[in-house]
Amino acid sequence: MSQPRPILYTYFRSSCSARVRIALNYKGIDYDSRAVNLVKGEHTSDDYTELNPGKLLPYLVIDGEGLSQSVAIMEYLDEVYPDKPLLPQDPGQRAKVRAIVNAISCDIQPLQNMRVLLTLPEEQRAEYACKIISTGLAVVERMLEKTAGDFCVGNQVTMADCCLIPQLYNAHRFNVDLSAMPHIRAIEERANALEAFRCAHWSRQPDCPDDLRSSAKN
Amino acid sequence: MSQPRPILYTYFRSSCSARVRIALNYKGIDYDSRAVNLVKGEHTSDDYTELNPGKLLPYLVIDGEGLSQSVAIMEYLDEVYPDKPLLPQDPGQRAKVRAIVNAISCDIQPLQNMRVLLTLPEEQRAEYACKIISTGLAVVERMLEKTAGDFCVGNQVTMADCCLIPQLYNAHRFNVDLSAMPHIRAIEERANALEAFRCAHWSRQPDCPDDLRSSAKN
Repeated sequence: MSQPRPILYTYFRSSCSARVRIALNYKGIDYDSRAVNLVKGEHTSDDYTELNPGKLLPYLVIDGEGLSQSVAIMEYLDEVYPDKPLLPQDPGQRAKVRAIVNAISCDIQPLQNMRVLLTLPEEQRAEYACKIISTGLAVVERMLEKTAGDFCVGNQVTMADCCLIPQLYNAHRFNVDLSAMPHIRAIEERANALEAFRCAHWSRQPDCPDDLRSSAKN
Repeated sequence: MSQPRPILYTYFRSSCSARVRIALNYKGIDYDSRAVNLVKGEHTSDDYTELNPGKLLPYLVIDGEGLSQSVAIMEYLDEVYPDKPLLPQDPGQRAKVRAIVNAISCDIQPLQNMRVLLTLPEEQRAEYACKIISTGLAVVERMLEKTAGDFCVGNQVTMADCCLIPQLYNAHRFNVDLSAMPHIRAIEERANALEAFRCAHWSRQPDCPDDLRSSAKN
């Protein structure tokens, strides 16, 4: 009994959606996309709220399950689709990966997302986001000093890289200075050489407007 | 070769520390506590920053590993100390637990912690925290409608309960109205009947000042 293709509810600018796009690409899991425009408020529609009461992205329908929360989704994918693992075998190393995942998913992303920025006066938003991301990435850089090889933890791609690279989209958007973060810059370069990461980039999504797409660097 | 007793760096009021206190208690892992007073800024000392560059709590030294980030720590404990599991066996159910964990650890706690509240004028802090927690717990309540048994997911304690109960300490502190959240209230009552949760309560920690301890309800 073959399952239907997975469906990912996503928005091109959503860094949490990008985490899951990378994980799906990396594992070679084909999926269909449904764009949910956060700026137009499509995530607050009755239909979407029924699907995902958190009114957040991403949401993945796979194997008959409806899954919310990007980190929970990556953990699920790694358990059910173990090829191309996103976690090392050793529990201590797994904890290091998850610590970086959480340093981004709990301590950076939630404090600089649109929901928070919209509570600030417009002229303060960019500066606030820049400060949050700079401070948070400086912590990640210090963690990477102890854990990084070619990627965040050792020489294989893990969930930590799936979280770091989309956070860097936002870092570039808000002109965060990464010059004192050599590990982060080296990992970004290596990740962007991989098709799984390149195809997940916001500028490559079908719902990215053409004018933004043409302005994309990274 | 027996390992030394685990050491948990903790603060009585830190809800992230409480998650790990509950997990350790539930699994019957004895540990020593080192209090780090967040209000006095002890987490920003050179010694602590060297240990944990994130300058956050908790931090657990166990099995020769130094582990940061409460959710990563709980995952480690569940992998290395599998008795009294904090995740179900089925991947879909595990994803539901982790979705609730993340709905709290990414979407509620970071937006109402001291670091954020201190950026607001003092007279606005309680109202802001109350609103963040109310909104976030309303989402969790809707998730629980589909997943709860005696506890957040099914009838066994999971990481989701280890996150929910400490978030409720903060809900009570900021007078969040839980009357429309019957699942949350029922789970709180069942959890508080368990020694693992009771002993992890902020009022039971050695670093809790006596005047606060005597005012504690739950």
